[in-house]
Amino acid sequence: MPVGNDFMGLALTEAEAAAARGEVPIGAVVVIDGTVIASAGNRTREMADPTAHAEILALREACRKLGSERLPGAHLYVTLEPCAMCAAAISFARVERLYYGAADPKGGGVDHGGRFYDQPTCHHRPDVYSGFSESRSAELLRSFFSEKRSD
Amino acid sequence: MPVGNDFMGLALTEAEAAAARGEVPIGAVVVIDGTVIASAGNRTREMADPTAHAEILALREACRKLGSERLPGAHLYVTLEPCAMCAAAISFARVERLYYGAADPKGGGVDHGGRFYDQPTCHHRPDVYSGFSESRSAELLRSFFSEKRSD
Repeated sequence: MPVGNDFMGLALTEAEAAAARGEVPIGAVVVIDGTVIASAGNRTREMADPTAHAEILALREACRKLGSERLPGAHLYVTLEPCAMCAAAISFARVERLYYGAADPKGGGVDHGGRFYDQPTCHHRPDVYSGFSESRSAELLRSFFSEKRSD
Repeated sequence: MPVGNDFMGLALTEAEAAAARGEVPIGAVVVIDGTVIASAGNRTREMADPTAHAEILALREACRKLGSERLPGAHLYVTLEPCAMCAAAISFARVERLYYGAADPKGGGVDHGGRFYDQPTCHHRPDVYSGFSESRSAELLRSFFSEKRSD
């Protein structure tokens, strides 16, 4: 059975693929009982959809596959701290554990901003583990935006 | 040209249609330059998708129609205060004005909980107007949950 870092490795591969498509390089993987159910990278530009973040696409794919709007027992691996939109979607899907790579002080919604899981309006809080492969996750984003600026 | 209350009326019609489908009765309408671009009611159960809130579906439809992940100048009418997920999606889509009906102290993310638009992690804040048709919006929800409890 793959260990956690392999799942984060797969999320990083999704992030790299997103960068290659010209999308902000963030990737996410949904795992249940040690099996990858869904994985995705950002596709907001390609899909012309502001909600097409990696986490949302992976959650929606997993729900579609399981025919359920809830994923109890699911673990979500994502390369960057989820934003408020994704943090709430992760809660609504009843994800059990959230593993994220780099922190996002500018746009994060878990440990920054509105800290959704700490609010009384949050009715399911996943266990949160952070700092996995954070340097590689952050470097992917840095080099992506650095290249964009020099275009 | 229809006035604001007509757009909220259409959102309420979407909410009623959602209730008839057994979904939480919330409806949303996207308007640009006085024209309805998209409207939707909740479909989380039918679609087995925890992100299929009325606002998300309406925003995604509007973006698909316009071929853009941003909707500058758009006005969004929704019967209930958006949750954190929807509040962030509305910001990402660059919606200009948000009109909502009833406040949602238990699950709202605009004037309750993490108050997304008041956070430094929010990079576009729509103008927010609330209290439109709030009694009808709230009554729809009350009777829906009251009927569910008595099932």
